[in-house]
Amino acid sequence: MNNARRYTLIISCPDRAGIIAAVSGFIAEHGGFIVEANYHTEQEAQRFFMRQEILADSLPFDAGEFARLFAALATKFDMSWQLSDTAHRKRLVILVSRQDHCLNDLLHRWRSGELLVDIPCVISNHEDLRSFVEWHHIPYIHVDMPGSNSADKAAAFEQIATLFDQHQGDCMVLARFMQILPPALCGRYPGRIINIHHSFLPSFVGAKPYHQAYQRGVKLIGATCHYVTDKLDAGPIIEQDTMRIDHGDSVEDLVRYGRDIEKTVLSRGLRYHVEDRVQVCGNKTIVFR
Amino acid sequence: MNNARRYTLIISCPDRAGIIAAVSGFIAEHGGFIVEANYHTEQEAQRFFMRQEILADSLPFDAGEFARLFAALATKFDMSWQLSDTAHRKRLVILVSRQDHCLNDLLHRWRSGELLVDIPCVISNHEDLRSFVEWHHIPYIHVDMPGSNSADKAAAFEQIATLFDQHQGDCMVLARFMQILPPALCGRYPGRIINIHHSFLPSFVGAKPYHQAYQRGVKLIGATCHYVTDKLDAGPIIEQDTMRIDHGDSVEDLVRYGRDIEKTVLSRGLRYHVEDRVQVCGNKTIVFR
Amino acid sequence: MNNARRYTLIISCPDRAGIIAAVSGFIAEHGGFIVEANYHTEQEAQRFFMRQEILADSLPFDAGEFARLFAALATKFDMSWQLSDTAHRKRLVILVSRQDHCLNDLLHRWRSGELLVDIPCVISNHEDLRSFVEWHHIPYIHVDMPGSNSADKAAAFEQIATLFDQHQGDCMVLARFMQILPPALCGRYPGRIINIHHSFLPSFVGAKPYHQAYQRGVKLIGATCHYVTDKLDAGPIIEQDTMRIDHGDSVEDLVRYGRDIEKTVLSRGLRYHVEDRVQVCGNKTIVFR
Amino acid sequence: MNNARRYTLIISCPDRAGIIAAVSGFIAEHGGFIVEANYHTEQEAQRFFMRQEILADSLPFDAGEFARLFAALATKFDMSWQLSDTAHRKRLVILVSRQDHCLNDLLHRWRSGELLVDIPCVISNHEDLRSFVEWHHIPYIHVDMPGSNSADKAAAFEQIATLFDQHQGDCMVLARFMQILPPALCGRYPGRIINIHHSFLPSFVGAKPYHQAYQRGVKLIGATCHYVTDKLDAGPIIEQDTMRIDHGDSVEDLVRYGRDIEKTVLSRGLRYHVEDRVQVCGNKTIVFR
Repeated sequence: MNNARRYTLIISCPDRAGIIAAVSGFIAEHGGFIVEANYHTEQEAQRFFMRQEILADSLPFDAGEFARLFAALATKFDMSWQLSDTAHRKRLVILVSRQDHCLNDLLHRWRSGELLVDIPCVISNHEDLRSFVEWHHIPYIHVDMPGSNSADKAAAFEQIATLFDQHQGDCMVLARFMQILPPALCGRYPGRIINIHHSFLPSFVGAKPYHQAYQRGVKLIGATCHYVTDKLDAGPIIEQDTMRIDHGDSVEDLVRYGRDIEKTVLSRGLRYHVEDRVQVCGNKTIVFR
Repeated sequence: MNNARRYTLIISCPDRAGIIAAVSGFIAEHGGFIVEANYHTEQEAQRFFMRQEILADSLPFDAGEFARLFAALATKFDMSWQLSDTAHRKRLVILVSRQDHCLNDLLHRWRSGELLVDIPCVISNHEDLRSFVEWHHIPYIHVDMPGSNSADKAAAFEQIATLFDQHQGDCMVLARFMQILPPALCGRYPGRIINIHHSFLPSFVGAKPYHQAYQRGVKLIGATCHYVTDKLDAGPIIEQDTMRIDHGDSVEDLVRYGRDIEKTVLSRGLRYHVEDRVQVCGNKTIVFR
Repeated sequence: MNNARRYTLIISCPDRAGIIAAVSGFIAEHGGFIVEANYHTEQEAQRFFMRQEILADSLPFDAGEFARLFAALATKFDMSWQLSDTAHRKRLVILVSRQDHCLNDLLHRWRSGELLVDIPCVISNHEDLRSFVEWHHIPYIHVDMPGSNSADKAAAFEQIATLFDQHQGDCMVLARFMQILPPALCGRYPGRIINIHHSFLPSFVGAKPYHQAYQRGVKLIGATCHYVTDKLDAGPIIEQDTMRIDHGDSVEDLVRYGRDIEKTVLSRGLRYHVEDRVQVCGNKTIVFR
Repeated sequence: MNNARRYTLIISCPDRAGIIAAVSGFIAEHGGFIVEANYHTEQEAQRFFMRQEILADSLPFDAGEFARLFAALATKFDMSWQLSDTAHRKRLVILVSRQDHCLNDLLHRWRSGELLVDIPCVISNHEDLRSFVEWHHIPYIHVDMPGSNSADKAAAFEQIATLFDQHQGDCMVLARFMQILPPALCGRYPGRIINIHHSFLPSFVGAKPYHQAYQRGVKLIGATCHYVTDKLDAGPIIEQDTMRIDHGDSVEDLVRYGRDIEKTVLSRGLRYHVEDRVQVCGNKTIVFR
C-alpha cells in the first residue's frame, strides 16, 4: 500500500443510482487521485456504503476545505460521512489485566511501525505489566478495580472514562481486560470500544469460553474481535478466526492455542478499525479489506 | 494406508498403568503385526481409549477366535471393546430430502472406491433424487412424510426404522434430511445415526442456520457432523469446519458456500466412523485420525 | 447476489485520475444501477482494472447500444474492455481422462443450477465416463489419444480444437485431463483454457506432484487453478488452496485428500472466470471476488 | 497436558512385530505410567518410530537407571533411542539480525512460561535489539559479520559456534537471522539448528521469497520451519503454514502478513522440537503432535 499521505472518505447513505458517479465525479473534478475504492450495498437495509482513499497531494486543498466543498453533495444524498487524514494518527488507549499476549503483540506492531497509531497510555487494574509498558516509554496507569462494592466499581470505571477523555483517546482497546464494562460506559463511546473475546461468537458468551468449548467437545476453537455495546459479547463483529483442536487437547492447551488466535484476530480487527475500513450497519459490520 | 485386510480393535476402560503393555503383549504373543496404534486418556473421566489396526494375515486365527482369546484380558481391565474386520463392509442407509449435494458427494466417493461401504438403499421423503440414485443401481425408497398429522409422522419414522433394520443397516446417515427424528428413533440406534448440521455448533441450532449466521454478522460459517441424540443438534460432535465469508455475501451465497463445507465435513466424519476411528465419551468424541 | 439480468463491464487501461468518475458518470447518465463495483491498480504495470455489474433493466438500451455509446469513452482512456450479459451463458467444453472427481463436482454444480453455464459436450480420451455424462443428457465425445506417434497425437489435438470450435466453446476446462496440450493449441485460445494442477504451484510442476510432495516431506498439500499457456504449469494463477497433512499420510492419502482440494479450487476458479471476475495482467491475475 | 515431571522416550528402529509390546512391557514391568504414546511406521524406509511420555514419579528409578536397564532391549531391536527429562530444560541460543517479530514472539512465550526452555544468550550481527533482549535479563552478544572478506566471515561463524558451545546450547534458532550458515557449521550440529524460511518451501528458495511470490502471482503465501543442513533451504521440514492473499496486496503487504505466519510456524516447530516430538527420517520429519 502506498505510504503517501492520504485522505480516507467513508460514506453511507440510502441506496440509489448515481452515488458512485457523484462522489467520484467530485473527486475527479478537483484532480483527486483515488488509490483504493470500495463499495457495498446492504440489501436488507437498502443502504449504500463506500470507502475511498485519495492521495492528499493530488488535491488542491486540505481536509477542511474538502469537507466544506463536499457538504452540498453529502446533503443531497443524505449521507453519513467522515473524512480522515493519515497524517493524523488515531489515539488508542489500551486496557489490560494480567495476561499480556495481546498487549505484547500490539506493542510490537506499534514499535515496529506496522500499527500506525499513538498510544497515550495503557490502563490496568493490576501492576504486573508496568515494567514492560514503561520500557516502551508509554505511561502505565493503574486503576484499582474493587471486587465487591459496586459503587467503588462504578467510580473505577468513571476514572477510566476520565482518563480516556484526558488522553484524547479515539479508541479504547480491551486487550484481554477481565472486567465487564458497565452499560453507561459502553453507551458513551459507541463504535469506539473494541474487545477481543476468546470464543467464536455467538458460541460461548461470557466467562471461561475455552472451558465451555472443551465441555461441548467442539473440533475448532476461535476468537472474535467486536465493538462493545451494552449487551455482553453481542456487539457488531469486526473479525473472527478459528483453529483446529482435537480430543488430545486439554483446556490448558485450548487456552494456549487460543492466545495465538486472540492476538491475530485483535490485531487484524484493530487495523481495519484504525484504517477506517469498518462501518457499522445495525448489528453488523461492513469491512472493506 | 495399507489396503491389506486388517482387524481394528477399539477399547475403552478405566485408566491405569499397564494397559498398552497388556494389549500389545497379547497381540505380539500371537505374532500380530500392528499397522496403526493410537491411545488417549480422557482426564476428567479417567478413562483410557485405544485403537489398533492389526494385519489379519499376521495372526494365526480369525476374528472370532481373536475375540474368544481376548475376553479374559478384556475382563481383567474392565474393557468395553469391539473388533471389526475390514473384509466386512459397514452398511450405510442414507436419508435425503431434496438437496443432493451431500448425496452426490457420498455416492461419488462410494463408486470411486474411496468410501468402502455398502449402501443397501437410499430413503427419501421426496421423489426428486430417484433417477440419480438408481443410476448407481442402488434401491431408492420413498417414504411419505406427512406434514400435519403427528400419528402419520410417527408411522413414517417407524417405517424408516423398519427399512433400516430390514436392510441390516449399521449406520443411518442424514445427508441433509430435512426432518427431525423423534427421540424414540434416536434412542434406538445410539452412536449409529450421523447428521450433518449446516452451522458451526453450538452456534445456530435448529432451522435456517445460514439465515441466523447472516443476521448475527459472523465472519465465518461452518458445518458440524455429529451423532444424533434425543437433544436437537446437541449430540457428540465428530467433525467440524469453517470458512471465511464477508459482508458482501448474501444469505444465498452462504447457502452456496455452505454446501461445500457440509459435504466435506460429512464425508470426513463418516469416514472416521466407518473406519472405527470415533469413540464416544460422555457427550464428546475421541477421533483417532 | 441479485439474480436479475445484469451487464458485466470489465475494463483495463493505463492508470490516471478520473477513470472511475468517467465510467460511473456514463452509467449514471443513462440511469444505470450498479450492483457491484470493484477497482484495482496494478502498481508495477501502472494499469487500472475495474469490473462493474449493472442491472440490465435500469438501462434504456441493450448491450449492443451500450457498447456503441461507450466506445468514445473507451477510446479516450485507451481501454481494453468487454461487456457481457448474464442472459448469455458461457459454453464450457470439459476435457477429462479417467478420474472423475472434478467432473462429478462440476456436473453437480451445473445440474443444481449453481454453475450457470452451458456444457455442449464432454470430450475424453477414454470411454469410462460416458454413462455418467450421458445420464446428464450431455454429449460425450471420445477422442483417441495415441501414446507413441506424435503426428497422430497432433491430429487428436486438432480434432479437439475443431470440436471446441464446432460447439462454440467459450472456455475449455481441463478437469484432470491427463495430456499435455501442445503450445499451438494453448496459443489458439489465450485466457480461455483452464487447468487444475494438483499441487500448490510453483512447487511440484509436471507429473506426479503428490509423489513429489511426499518425497519432499511438506506439511501441507495444495492445488492450483490456472490459465494454460505454452509453458507447462506456469500460466496465470486464478485460485489456489492448501490443506494440512502429516507424516502418517501415505502418497495414496495425499491423492485422496488432494481430490477434495482439486475440485474445490477448480470450481471456485471456474466460477470466477465464468462471472468475468478474472483479468490477466502479465502472468498474474486480478480476481474481483 | 500434565505438568508433572515426565520422561520422554523416543525410539526408532527397523520395523517388525512386537516392538510396542516389548517397550510398553518394559515400562509396565516397572510400574511406569504412560501419559502419551505415539507410533509410526515409515513405509518406504521400513522403519518404526515411537514416542512415549512416562510420569517420572511412577517409576522406581531415575533417568540414568532407566537408560541402563533399557539398553538390552534397545540392542535387541537395534534401536536409536533417547530419553529426556522434562526437569532438564533445553538451552536455546537465538540468532537474530534486525527484524524482531520472531524474537519478540519467542521471548514472550518464554517469559510467560509457555515455552519451557532456557535462553542463555541471544546473538546478533547488529546492535538494534540489545535493549529489548537485555530488558529480559538475557545476555545479548554482538558478533560482527563482515560483508566482503570471506575469511573474516568464517571467523565470525567460528565465533558463533564457540559461543554456542560455551553456553552449552542444545538448539540454535535462526529467528530471521539474515546470514547463510556455512556448510561446516551446519554439519557440526545436525538436527540442532532450526530456521524459519519466509516461503512455503520448496517454492521460493533463497533471497526475497515474498518478492518471488508476488512476481509469480500466487494466491497464498507461507512460511517453513526446518532443520538446517548444508543445502540451502532444503533441510527436513518441521512445520509449515499458508495464508490467503489477493491481487490487492503489495509486496509490503505480503511481508507484513508473512511476519504473522513466520512467528506462528517457528514457535510451533520449535515447540515440537523442544518437546522431543520431532524425529528425522531421511530428509523428512515425523512430528508426533
